[in-house]
Amino acid sequence: MSEVAIGIDIGGTCTCIGVVDKKGNIIAETSIPTQESRDFNVFIENLSTAISDLITPLKNLDLRGIGIGAPNGNYYKGTVEYPPNLPWKGVSSIVDKLKIYFDVPMVLTNDANAAAIGEMIYGGAKGIKNFVVITLGTGLGSGFVVNGSLMYGDDGFAGEAGHMTAIENGRKCGCGKKGCLETYASATGIVNTVKELLSNSKTKSSLRKIPENEISSKLIYEAAKDGDKIALEAFEYTGKILGISLANIVNITSPKMIIIFGGLAKSGNLIIKPTKKAMEANVLPVFRDKVNIKLSELSEENAAVLGASALVWKEF
Amino acid sequence: MSEVAIGIDIGGTCTCIGVVDKKGNIIAETSIPTQESRDFNVFIENLSTAISDLITPLKNLDLRGIGIGAPNGNYYKGTVEYPPNLPWKGVSSIVDKLKIYFDVPMVLTNDANAAAIGEMIYGGAKGIKNFVVITLGTGLGSGFVVNGSLMYGDDGFAGEAGHMTAIENGRKCGCGKKGCLETYASATGIVNTVKELLSNSKTKSSLRKIPENEISSKLIYEAAKDGDKIALEAFEYTGKILGISLANIVNITSPKMIIIFGGLAKSGNLIIKPTKKAMEANVLPVFRDKVNIKLSELSEENAAVLGASALVWKEF
Repeated sequence: MSEVAIGIDIGGTCTCIGVVDKKGNIIAETSIPTQESRDFNVFIENLSTAISDLITPLKNLDLRGIGIGAPNGNYYKGTVEYPPNLPWKGVSSIVDKLKIYFDVPMVLTNDANAAAIGEMIYGGAKGIKNFVVITLGTGLGSGFVVNGSLMYGDDGFAGEAGHMTAIENGRKCGCGKKGCLETYASATGIVNTVKELLSNSKTKSSLRKIPENEISSKLIYEAAKDGDKIALEAFEYTGKILGISLANIVNITSPKMIIIFGGLAKSGNLIIKPTKKAMEANVLPVFRDKVNIKLSELSEENAAVLGASALVWKEF
Repeated sequence: MSEVAIGIDIGGTCTCIGVVDKKGNIIAETSIPTQESRDFNVFIENLSTAISDLITPLKNLDLRGIGIGAPNGNYYKGTVEYPPNLPWKGVSSIVDKLKIYFDVPMVLTNDANAAAIGEMIYGGAKGIKNFVVITLGTGLGSGFVVNGSLMYGDDGFAGEAGHMTAIENGRKCGCGKKGCLETYASATGIVNTVKELLSNSKTKSSLRKIPENEISSKLIYEAAKDGDKIALEAFEYTGKILGISLANIVNITSPKMIIIFGGLAKSGNLIIKPTKKAMEANVLPVFRDKVNIKLSELSEENAAVLGASALVWKEF
């Protein structure tokens, strides 16, 4: 009998399910569309059917638990609460409902926390007791490991670094506040920075040829690699703002490592270099040159499911 | 036999030593001047003599350990490292040296961390697993309790909220950076704010009668109580800057409570009200109206020694 965990990553478009062994090998995987189940009970039915279909043919496996990563996931309650990009409004009791179908240990947390545990069990943070994972996707997510455990805070929602105020009275954020870090340091943020730079300057740029609503972080990355001045300036600006906020995070939590993950992280040194420079300039001298900023070693395709499954090994 | 702990608070001027029972009663106390022992070995000799003199006459006590709070105290190493306001430069191995004289369990951490444990064991944070203590004195210190334990971070120096960047390119800080929170939100910070307000406006103020180098946070408090516009504006501004940084702290760590302590905290609602207003305006909606900002219930006179002694009950 080989011990396995099921990892479930609930995303805005698609919910991915993987059966994972202790070494991080994905033995089987499947997915269901999240958006099609606008009724939460229908989603739970579809999810449980998909899990059953996935595990029934597998033999000689000992299922040790199910780990779930989801936006706005609440670890204490096993709920997803007011997720802006999921079809169910209010509070959805995922763990309670799924337990009706599968009587195994179950744990849920937000997706960035799951990514942090994934890094701890399978990735670049093995054996590290204090580190931070920053996910740079459509928004900015974060997961904090303190003294070897995830920091959930009083209400289960700790780790919302994306909503630290980066610029007072800055860009309007989806959360209702202004100037949140994720309105600058994310795939969406860098696109908006490029749009601002294009309209506020006459600098030549290959990005001027692209219709405004088609500019993406990927195209900005490609332009920057070709030496485009606007694209390079956008990376410098994004890194500077991210670096100052990371310095604030370092001053408070003193991590050994900050792992950067997600779409924008694929830009490598274009984002890491200005980020590190601004971070080092803004940490207290006692922290200088101590904190390792590095890219995730996990493939983005698998990381969410691996992270969710890793919750099982960490918890039970 | 009554179980007791010794609490030692090493301050810039004076080192206070107290024998404390489990209920937080100070059974005996003494102090030695810190600055007179410019040689660290002389300080340790004086300290151990003072401890011996204090405990020798006490009968029927079971000494369970010694807890030490000190600026720039490193929990992992039992050292004080590069303290700006203490007479010894570099790294001083307090725990190792003091253990030569007293063979009991010993623990050292920075003064704000000791204050946090004091609040947990004897003060307003009993039974609270996630909270923050902010000390508003000459500078701004902070101690974070996460999952019921102090957050020390990778190198033992976590909790430097005073050096978060509050204003980019703002006031010059003693740490070498610019715009650190403590250059605004501290007794020193509010004095500098008043000086700026006085020179940048023609508003009438009783504070104009005081020689500039004699303006203190206490005098500003008294002027504000009398309705002085400059003093009131200074409290509003200080609270706003502190509140925005506290919101960033809440967004990351999700505490149940923030306890404010130290000289400036004595101003009560004058500082708490604008701080809370700015904090609530800058937290993610999910945290709104959840975090209790309150003043410490411990008397400032005893809190440092109580906090240091509480480290013993927490650790051993």
